[in-house]
Amino acid sequence: MIHKIKSDPNKPLILITNDDSIYSKGIRSLVDAVKDLGQVVVVAPSLPQSGMGHAVTLKDPIRLTPIVRFDGVLASYACSGTPVDSVKIARDIILDRKPDICLSGINHGSNSSINIIYSGTMSAAVEAAIEEIPSIGFSLCDHDLDADFETAKQVVRKLTIQMLAHPLNKPSLLNVNIPKVKPENLKGYRICRQAVAKWEEEFEERIDPRGGNYYWLTGKFVSYDDGHDTDEWALANDFVSVVPIQFDLTNYHNINYIHNNWELN
Amino acid sequence: MIHKIKSDPNKPLILITNDDSIYSKGIRSLVDAVKDLGQVVVVAPSLPQSGMGHAVTLKDPIRLTPIVRFDGVLASYACSGTPVDSVKIARDIILDRKPDICLSGINHGSNSSINIIYSGTMSAAVEAAIEEIPSIGFSLCDHDLDADFETAKQVVRKLTIQMLAHPLNKPSLLNVNIPKVKPENLKGYRICRQAVAKWEEEFEERIDPRGGNYYWLTGKFVSYDDGHDTDEWALANDFVSVVPIQFDLTNYHNINYIHNNWELN
Repeated sequence: MIHKIKSDPNKPLILITNDDSIYSKGIRSLVDAVKDLGQVVVVAPSLPQSGMGHAVTLKDPIRLTPIVRFDGVLASYACSGTPVDSVKIARDIILDRKPDICLSGINHGSNSSINIIYSGTMSAAVEAAIEEIPSIGFSLCDHDLDADFETAKQVVRKLTIQMLAHPLNKPSLLNVNIPKVKPENLKGYRICRQAVAKWEEEFEERIDPRGGNYYWLTGKFVSYDDGHDTDEWALANDFVSVVPIQFDLTNYHNINYIHNNWELN
Repeated sequence: MIHKIKSDPNKPLILITNDDSIYSKGIRSLVDAVKDLGQVVVVAPSLPQSGMGHAVTLKDPIRLTPIVRFDGVLASYACSGTPVDSVKIARDIILDRKPDICLSGINHGSNSSINIIYSGTMSAAVEAAIEEIPSIGFSLCDHDLDADFETAKQVVRKLTIQMLAHPLNKPSLLNVNIPKVKPENLKGYRICRQAVAKWEEEFEERIDPRGGNYYWLTGKFVSYDDGHDTDEWALANDFVSVVPIQFDLTNYHNINYIHNNWELN
């Protein structure tokens, strides 16, 4: 039986999750960076979930397993589901109140530009924001399992303090990417827009021992955007990219276009 | 060995996918509604993939299986991956050129409002639009496996003809939901915005034979939006909801807020 945590109403309640799994170095770095700012509860996937986007688990039950791994946290659970499931079940089963902030990451690898759509790390942050929880997804531009998170930890701490003090207009949600540089070489912060970019897919074909074809998704990330106000520009120039995010996907411009050009009656 | 199809450059090339699987009634209804408008290629998941959002398959290989199920199509394949994988692999492995349009659905059940984010059907349409393919996701507000798609087929046909004739400003992408009414009771079309709504989660707890807890994701869809310009209003009033969609998630308003209120140096 899992009992709801009993949080102190006088201290910020910080929910932490990710998509690289509760056993990654990135999530431990995130906990270390902020644990003295409030009460930390970790609910994160038990297995890596990169590229899971905003998937939820409908056809399988979800399990929660208490994990002893983090010092100085209120509770930590591995969730058998996706990053988005982790946020949902934390809110409904584990937390006794809405957290003051949700932090997701620190992802091993960039989630800039269009990658926000594929990223489990960012989808968890988006899910929290849908629940009206101020939320930040953090990603370090370094895929290494043993990446150096020192710069990232300083960035996480600074942005978390600002978000707690000055939540944004709803939704209060950021996509933060951190370049792979030493703290002394970080140029600063750029508040920017999502660059126009996409993956050019190349599936790699293989033949199994019985002669059947199968395919591995690979691909190359290509930016088509020369703007200096984008996350891609910031990262290429050793700045932290900070993109405020929303999830109203309506393209308002095209409402008029359809009214003026389509025949629907 | 899978060979690329050879399409006729003088006829529209129509890629069809969904998330309910290639064996659903909805995708067959979609094919039937448009197959005389061009050359149809179907690439859709081999198993149901509802709620998969924008997930891609990174840790497993992907298989394609030729399927004989649809009359009058150029080719049809079941894809072992997600709806987004289906669009990617269709483009890279099966199609000889960029399709003129991608149609996803017809989903068994609504994908209005915030559901676009969780929906495999809509994520497949979004993926096509990222590839600069005009694209429409269609959903019928009826979860029944044997739902009546007659009204939906008329809607699909009308909107597909308009999209082929007048693609939107990029991205050319629509989220279309169709109320569960007979053709003669359909009130018409509303070009609208995504309503403000969310799922209020309630996980249902169960105990396994060994005494362990597990949880099923359930939940209740709640709209917080009284506007008459939303997809929820349109559907509640027997109109087809047509929401133009984009995938630049930048919240431009909050860029200024951060500049004015946060201390980052």
